[in-house]
Amino acid sequence: MKTELSDRTEISVRFNEADPLGIVWHGHYVRYFEDGREAFGQKYGIGYLDFYAKGIVVPVVNIHCDFKRSLRYGERVVVETIYHPCEAAKMKFEYKLYNAETGILVATGASTQVFLDKETSALQLTNPPYFEEWKARMGFSK
Amino acid sequence: MKTELSDRTEISVRFNEADPLGIVWHGHYVRYFEDGREAFGQKYGIGYLDFYAKGIVVPVVNIHCDFKRSLRYGERVVVETIYHPCEAAKMKFEYKLYNAETGILVATGASTQVFLDKETSALQLTNPPYFEEWKARMGFSK
Amino acid sequence: MKTELSDRTEISVRFNEADPLGIVWHGHYVRYFEDGREAFGQKYGIGYLDFYAKGIVVPVVNIHCDFKRSLRYGERVVVETIYHPCEAAKMKFEYKLYNAETGILVATGASTQVFLDKETSALQLTNPPYFEEWKARMGFSK
Amino acid sequence: MKTELSDRTEISVRFNEADPLGIVWHGHYVRYFEDGREAFGQKYGIGYLDFYAKGIVVPVVNIHCDFKRSLRYGERVVVETIYHPCEAAKMKFEYKLYNAETGILVATGASTQVFLDKETSALQLTNPPYFEEWKARMGFSK
Repeated sequence: MKTELSDRTEISVRFNEADPLGIVWHGHYVRYFEDGREAFGQKYGIGYLDFYAKGIVVPVVNIHCDFKRSLRYGERVVVETIYHPCEAAKMKFEYKLYNAETGILVATGASTQVFLDKETSALQLTNPPYFEEWKARMGFSK
Repeated sequence: MKTELSDRTEISVRFNEADPLGIVWHGHYVRYFEDGREAFGQKYGIGYLDFYAKGIVVPVVNIHCDFKRSLRYGERVVVETIYHPCEAAKMKFEYKLYNAETGILVATGASTQVFLDKETSALQLTNPPYFEEWKARMGFSK
Repeated sequence: MKTELSDRTEISVRFNEADPLGIVWHGHYVRYFEDGREAFGQKYGIGYLDFYAKGIVVPVVNIHCDFKRSLRYGERVVVETIYHPCEAAKMKFEYKLYNAETGILVATGASTQVFLDKETSALQLTNPPYFEEWKARMGFSK
Repeated sequence: MKTELSDRTEISVRFNEADPLGIVWHGHYVRYFEDGREAFGQKYGIGYLDFYAKGIVVPVVNIHCDFKRSLRYGERVVVETIYHPCEAAKMKFEYKLYNAETGILVATGASTQVFLDKETSALQLTNPPYFEEWKARMGFSK
């Protein structure tokens, strides 16, 4: 039985993302996580717009990041985005960022999203049918 | 007869706005212009949300910036926002950014906004009544 | 004996910080935390540039945020930044964001910073003298 | 004799770049221009880091953008970056942004950069040798 699902995508560090120390400002990693989630969503058919078309929005309710190495302008980053299934009506992702050239782990992180009705903003206490079907299709038992 | 109307507001350069050269990345000046427009709008009752409440959105259709001096993290900036009336159904602002401590001019700029119907996105070819009234109230003849 | 030190500063939600759902994009909260740290640093003489003048840089090594309520363009936010002393050579801050009008808690967070030598980037395993003096001056016993 | 040199690169509109109206906030186009310049620089060997290795920094001294159509989250954008040679010690780029799917022109723009000595920040009144050689190699007569 599958216990996780992952995607790897590669991005470039932009000049405007580096700070006066020459390294990527820590807040931009949240953007990299979103780039990872976006690539994951496109690959597995579970993107933000897929949910939106079903009347659901999926706001981030918590985020965490551990910064291990710095990144510099011109470097390329591999963003590994790992979906971990859970029983609650939540969507949990783990992130691992690597320096694309050296393979060194530069940061790890995690985020949790919940499901809200697009019109009423009501929190969904059970998984939306669309998400349940997706989990089954991907081979997850819970 | 009045020919312009202006506001001055002061902002701080954030650490995360400076680039690897230690100076503010040029793209952030567009943000400073918006801070200026925001302060102008609050002072004179013509903010983005004032328009929105009247069913109008006011997108920027062009922007220009001349960078004369650099700005560094920790410095404070005076944003002078100057409204120039025109006969067309447009809203034109000029911007002057000064180093707050030295008074030196660091950048100048300009922007043009148009009026769209919030629901249909249709371009308004004449000034919305709300804006006409505002111009009259401010003492502009055109 | 003092066990924490805090500052409250107020900021405005910018138009360009809200996303297509009309609410502040979650990544911008990291910026609000930095605004809070900046205000704290200015108030108590322990800002980024104070450290830098002593040859020390203080990168963020982890960050966490729990999003409880949404923020919208035009709203004002109180950022409460709380310093918690610890024995390790680290600087730990806690953040509480409130809707300035309603007083409702909208987010909580935390960050950890370490001390690096500005020239060599070497991690400082004990607190820099400058920071020890600051802690003593502020009335912290550890 | 060649009179211009261009590159086309494709980027995606990020969720966090769209504003409460659902369209890309105008300030982000300056970022797209930089993405275009970056792709141009990598293709033709005249990137920011190429200059930097020669002791030169190339700050943007003016920028202009005309916004013609809106862009939405999920859309892809073709950034066409066109170098126009000039006799002055400046580097001028023109930008054309197209909706990648429809081919419709969504924005045009322009920027000017100058050459500064990396150490002294002194403005270079003549083209740096590195840039002269590049122009000759690319087939430009002036």
